[in-house]
Amino acid sequence: MASKIRESLLVSLSAHQDEYLSGEQLAKEAGCSRTAIWKHIEELRKEGITIDSKRKKGYKLMQLSQQDNITETDILLGLQTTSLGRSIHHYDAVESTQKIAHKLAQEHAPEGTLVIAEEQTAGRGRMARSWHSPKGSGIWMSLLLRPELPPQKAPQFTLLTAVALVQAIEDICDVQVEIKWPNDLLINNRKVTGILTELQADSEQIHSLIIGIGMNVNQKQEDFPKELVDIATSLAIEKGSEVSRAAIVQRTMYHLEKYYHLYMEKGFAPIKLLWESYAISIGRHITARTFNGSISGIASGITEEGVLLLEDDQGAVHSIYSADIEINPKNREKE
Amino acid sequence: MASKIRESLLVSLSAHQDEYLSGEQLAKEAGCSRTAIWKHIEELRKEGITIDSKRKKGYKLMQLSQQDNITETDILLGLQTTSLGRSIHHYDAVESTQKIAHKLAQEHAPEGTLVIAEEQTAGRGRMARSWHSPKGSGIWMSLLLRPELPPQKAPQFTLLTAVALVQAIEDICDVQVEIKWPNDLLINNRKVTGILTELQADSEQIHSLIIGIGMNVNQKQEDFPKELVDIATSLAIEKGSEVSRAAIVQRTMYHLEKYYHLYMEKGFAPIKLLWESYAISIGRHITARTFNGSISGIASGITEEGVLLLEDDQGAVHSIYSADIEINPKNREKE
Repeated sequence: MASKIRESLLVSLSAHQDEYLSGEQLAKEAGCSRTAIWKHIEELRKEGITIDSKRKKGYKLMQLSQQDNITETDILLGLQTTSLGRSIHHYDAVESTQKIAHKLAQEHAPEGTLVIAEEQTAGRGRMARSWHSPKGSGIWMSLLLRPELPPQKAPQFTLLTAVALVQAIEDICDVQVEIKWPNDLLINNRKVTGILTELQADSEQIHSLIIGIGMNVNQKQEDFPKELVDIATSLAIEKGSEVSRAAIVQRTMYHLEKYYHLYMEKGFAPIKLLWESYAISIGRHITARTFNGSISGIASGITEEGVLLLEDDQGAVHSIYSADIEINPKNREKE
Repeated sequence: MASKIRESLLVSLSAHQDEYLSGEQLAKEAGCSRTAIWKHIEELRKEGITIDSKRKKGYKLMQLSQQDNITETDILLGLQTTSLGRSIHHYDAVESTQKIAHKLAQEHAPEGTLVIAEEQTAGRGRMARSWHSPKGSGIWMSLLLRPELPPQKAPQFTLLTAVALVQAIEDICDVQVEIKWPNDLLINNRKVTGILTELQADSEQIHSLIIGIGMNVNQKQEDFPKELVDIATSLAIEKGSEVSRAAIVQRTMYHLEKYYHLYMEKGFAPIKLLWESYAISIGRHITARTFNGSISGIASGITEEGVLLLEDDQGAVHSIYSADIEINPKNREKE
């Protein structure tokens, strides 16, 4: 993690990209000497960040690193949040960012701690499935939250995160993203992002909530393994050009923080409305494959607790907590 | 943990307390030699268990250890379950049995694993409160379950455990036990037992559920610290004589396993009925102190997910996930 000085410096420079900021002002904001500021500026320049300096005027951020990096510096420069993503643990390669985030949670890491890796060697998805997380081309990250909520509410955070991710991707890539319950984000019917929400709790309160996000960003079609090539896509494929991973992370943190605050103030209702507006499966005839067999019917909505309601052909309504969803062909014929 | 041979021997002897069992039969059931059986019998005798042996007839369990012990042997001798409590980790002193059970869960310990200690140096209750767990006079234990259920269902297990504990205590002590939502067991309005259910899960499925139970068994009134003396009691105080901790553990495991199976087959409805029949707070005027302030009204019931419903004086119904409950004096006047 960066020092507090470096973090303050990055926040100040990125918040005022068009202005020169005096060394004195930067030092005051960071609570350090002007010499310390100068040393940190030199370090950032060595990392490839262009910072102009003018006598009597001070420092101005000219250009971020040209490479598609997601180091702590790259993310902090331009991060528009007050707590989410402010404490960053960046790794070249890890087994799984979820595992590290759980460990940090037990070591009392603060809310908003973000674990991010260039590569996962044992990335995990839902239902203990593996998640293909190759080096440098995706976003593999886990965010720690500590909401003062009962464990029944935890699954709502998968849906809240989906909403934030849809908006982050649409902001940066200008493509239309859809949500497939519970945790898949699709572009043109192919999966681009998955969410894995894990929790530690007692009966009454969540102790830690770890939101894992895996996103295909700059893979080309031929980069996907054979078994995924027909069902997966990346932001770059859909947008037609490379995408800044740091920008996606920053924008995701921004929307997540916004909706997290909204949720804590107003409850799940506004999030639910947004989620439903992005959801591909609601109102359609689907098949849900659960542990106990398959059920087909119309997906009629989600409950306040994020449970999918499925009305079967006899009119009975089933609460689906966990399943793989398939949208049935007869919908497509109708369209 | 005991060897499989020892476990089989203990189960066979305690299942046939009135009969002699031949060495040959015991050896067959344990899948070992008759010499091995003889060696294990000798070991049990050294531990204070009286086992009679007759030529041509075999071995018969005469008397358990006279001391109030809760070692693995003491619990296995007389345990009437197929999985709960069959793998026992007994300690003289631990920080907290919950902590050890969580660690065992991560190390893939099987469902039914029981951690039990003579003393906890940092026992935990609800809401990160400490729990007084002095040496040798109580039951401080944590049970690992791995139900294939979504995390929303976890709080129901606090209620299921309360039902099993009420029945175990009533079986052994012949006193009337009442439940105070969510997790206190009371005898004559004083607390005798607390339950702390913790879980690790993702949005769709529980990975591990750790049920912590703290029970005052053989304390005398003067053993309680000053701040507890008016609100706590022990089984021995209420029954008027010493109580076998092993018997309580065995009976608790028996009822827990029974209701766990019932729950997995029939759902929460039958457990809910039992719980409500033992609950002290339902139908009474209570005050619930929550994180966000106090609400007073009639406790009208619990939901399918174990949430307390409270109807305030204006007729609005509140869902209470977490609170301290106080039963208001006006009820007592009515009685």
